Amino acid sequence: MIDNRIMNNVTPRRPQGFQEYLPAQQLQFDFMIEKIIEIYRLYGLMPINTPTLELADVLLAKGGGETEKEIYRFSKGDTEYALRYDLTIPLARYVSEHKNDLTLPFRRYQIQKVWRAERPQKGRYREFIQCDADVIGSSSIGHDAELIAMAADIFRSLKIGKFTIKINNRKILSGFIEEIGLSDKSEDIMHALDKIEKIGRDEVGKILKGSGCGDDDANQLLDFVSITGSNDTILNKLEGYKIKNKQFAEGISDLRQVLKYANELGADDSVCSLNLGIVRGLDYYTGTVYETTLDDRPDFGSVCSGGRYDDLTKYFSKSKLPGVGISIGLSRLFAALLESGEMMPSQEPVEAFVANFGAGSREWALKISNDFRAAGIRTQVDLDGDKPAKQFKYADRLKVPYTVVVGEIEAKNKLVQLKNMSSGQQEELAIDTAIIRIKNHES
Amino acid sequence: MIDNRIMNNVTPRRPQGFQEYLPAQQLQFDFMIEKIIEIYRLYGLMPINTPTLELADVLLAKGGGETEKEIYRFSKGDTEYALRYDLTIPLARYVSEHKNDLTLPFRRYQIQKVWRAERPQKGRYREFIQCDADVIGSSSIGHDAELIAMAADIFRSLKIGKFTIKINNRKILSGFIEEIGLSDKSEDIMHALDKIEKIGRDEVGKILKGSGCGDDDANQLLDFVSITGSNDTILNKLEGYKIKNKQFAEGISDLRQVLKYANELGADDSVCSLNLGIVRGLDYYTGTVYETTLDDRPDFGSVCSGGRYDDLTKYFSKSKLPGVGISIGLSRLFAALLESGEMMPSQEPVEAFVANFGAGSREWALKISNDFRAAGIRTQVDLDGDKPAKQFKYADRLKVPYTVVVGEIEAKNKLVQLKNMSSGQQEELAIDTAIIRIKNHES
Repeated sequence: MIDNRIMNNVTPRRPQGFQEYLPAQQLQFDFMIEKIIEIYRLYGLMPINTPTLELADVLLAKGGGETEKEIYRFSKGDTEYALRYDLTIPLARYVSEHKNDLTLPFRRYQIQKVWRAERPQKGRYREFIQCDADVIGSSSIGHDAELIAMAADIFRSLKIGKFTIKINNRKILSGFIEEIGLSDKSEDIMHALDKIEKIGRDEVGKILKGSGCGDDDANQLLDFVSITGSNDTILNKLEGYKIKNKQFAEGISDLRQVLKYANELGADDSVCSLNLGIVRGLDYYTGTVYETTLDDRPDFGSVCSGGRYDDLTKYFSKSKLPGVGISIGLSRLFAALLESGEMMPSQEPVEAFVANFGAGSREWALKISNDFRAAGIRTQVDLDGDKPAKQFKYADRLKVPYTVVVGEIEAKNKLVQLKNMSSGQQEELAIDTAIIRIKNHES
Repeated sequence: MIDNRIMNNVTPRRPQGFQEYLPAQQLQFDFMIEKIIEIYRLYGLMPINTPTLELADVLLAKGGGETEKEIYRFSKGDTEYALRYDLTIPLARYVSEHKNDLTLPFRRYQIQKVWRAERPQKGRYREFIQCDADVIGSSSIGHDAELIAMAADIFRSLKIGKFTIKINNRKILSGFIEEIGLSDKSEDIMHALDKIEKIGRDEVGKILKGSGCGDDDANQLLDFVSITGSNDTILNKLEGYKIKNKQFAEGISDLRQVLKYANELGADDSVCSLNLGIVRGLDYYTGTVYETTLDDRPDFGSVCSGGRYDDLTKYFSKSKLPGVGISIGLSRLFAALLESGEMMPSQEPVEAFVANFGAGSREWALKISNDFRAAGIRTQVDLDGDKPAKQFKYADRLKVPYTVVVGEIEAKNKLVQLKNMSSGQQEELAIDTAIIRIKNHES
């Protein structure tokens, strides 16, 4: 018989830009997701999970744009499918499809993968996980503040080091543009100003002039988005402009309110920082906008962005549905943490390993593992009948905090030898006592 | 300005066979996943998560077969991609790719979606979630027993009603086929016998004869897989055959051992049932095989299947890697539970709603929500300034167990009105007292 293993051998490998982790890293990643979910739930958000494949005409309802060539799409049978590239279009589709079954305001979280055929680069993958939270069906900016407080709670609980939630309100810049008589170029100006951190003032100046802004206007705009200072200083400077424009005034008043509420919810000026340079590229946003950076790793860009929009379901429904949302780019955040070695300390994957050798020891080891698990201790037991040295080596590699050793004598006496792997101490105990020791992390 | 909402309107809908749940159902589904993960971890398994898209030549390394036409595959740029149709091939690819970084035996769980372009039918979707657990790199059947015990723990904790884990060992039937001199037809016979529950004895008889089995052989085989009785009865009947075939004898001894160990781990004969009719269609299995059915919903088929294989990485590596695995079909299980109304009682999605109206009440409500969340209470607060009646109606729809009502007076006195929504009782309390009431579920 010909061995078809040799005939068929294929090199095991993944497509470019598709990331996966080793088990210990994956566990860390999963802990971060669990933490995020815990806090989303504390804020009373509900989960949704949408299909990976959407109908191409639905996903592309928005049409055109730069994203389109980055979308994975294909036909099978009569159907044209596309893989989602964010969680916002699927949310809009979901809310439109199920609107009769949802109570507004609808508070949802969604943690799923998205796909973009971008050129892979540091912290950017073709498949990555987004953790979105949105409150839909309310225009009240109280929700804008609540999402900021929630993001701050999440980043604090993930122990990722210092972070800054940069906040702005697009009405301010819109109002300013209106005031200086450039409303017809508003979209171009916003797109240009959004790039100021990336390409610098001079380059943005050139783009502005290319869009038909005069030198003075360009400089005014650039000065405007570069206003710095404490939150109060910025608000005072804005009011110093004495602009009567309605949007401008609303933007300032909204920002004050958002900061006030966020503060009441525990996100004070030490994490919230007004930044008039935050414009967000998407035309979609109409009010508050946010970006979040890690103070020690600004090079990783924003790890949590979002904002307020006034019409989520534009392409699927005639009724307007306003809302506000944030999206945590967990894959990117994780890459930053891995690189800086600042990974949050995780749960021990396995707390106890039960080594066993000699007559009757296997049965006794199974009983021990059963009791340990019933007590909530994550337990592995040797089932291979390996030699003692090999079993201990395996326990070492597992980095397990406790090893239980049972041989013929322990099996007969219904006892265990419990070894604390860091102190090296070993003691003969009853199962119940061993359980207490392990649960209390005693030596 | 032309309103492009009207121009672009697309009907919000999903591709056929792609399921999604309403938020309350999704929460139930997520709780089930969390329970499964908790138990996988108690057994010392580690998570992996592989990319949705694999390279087509890698995913199809196994080649041919019925599954091939059910695979979603497509090209983008120079790359041919395919969506995984199970979690086993990705596991084989993962283990082969990362073998130098893994310690054997490698115990992994993986809970992800898979895709098959089958005709959608009851409990079967084109996208569904599998919860796999495998122990790789060991031939010891102790692991086979441990996975049975783990599955039993999971099904008990999910409160899905009575279930039966049907167990067999392919060596027994292989040995029997060898004994009656039909080894050359072994594969065809196994495939035919696998269908006995679906199409019945007569139809399988016809297929067997079509494959060249004589009438006597066909009847012998059909009688063999139809042996019933308690586990002991079946084992005794098998031994009664007095067959000296090596595989046959090994199969019986393996089964006895697996049942004994499973019993030590708490999965006794009330949940483990020997069933010689369980063959599993895949050629891949070489030893223990399992299927699990819900006693009250046998029509949903197996909700947890698996078995032992002797060469996981056949297509990617020349070294043999034996293992054993189970796969819980959670989407199907969930469909069965939804239909029978036997859904496990879930956590309250939101435990407290803070209604607020009147001067100063918003700020006080925010402070209350902040304290509640810090105490671990899942809380929503009205941020829309709706009229009292609308806020109460929203709280009713949320099915929240407690509503906190704060108006001008409560804000001034720093108190809350806590209303138990099921008893209707309402009382004026300090925040701390209200927190204790809610945490203790007091009226």
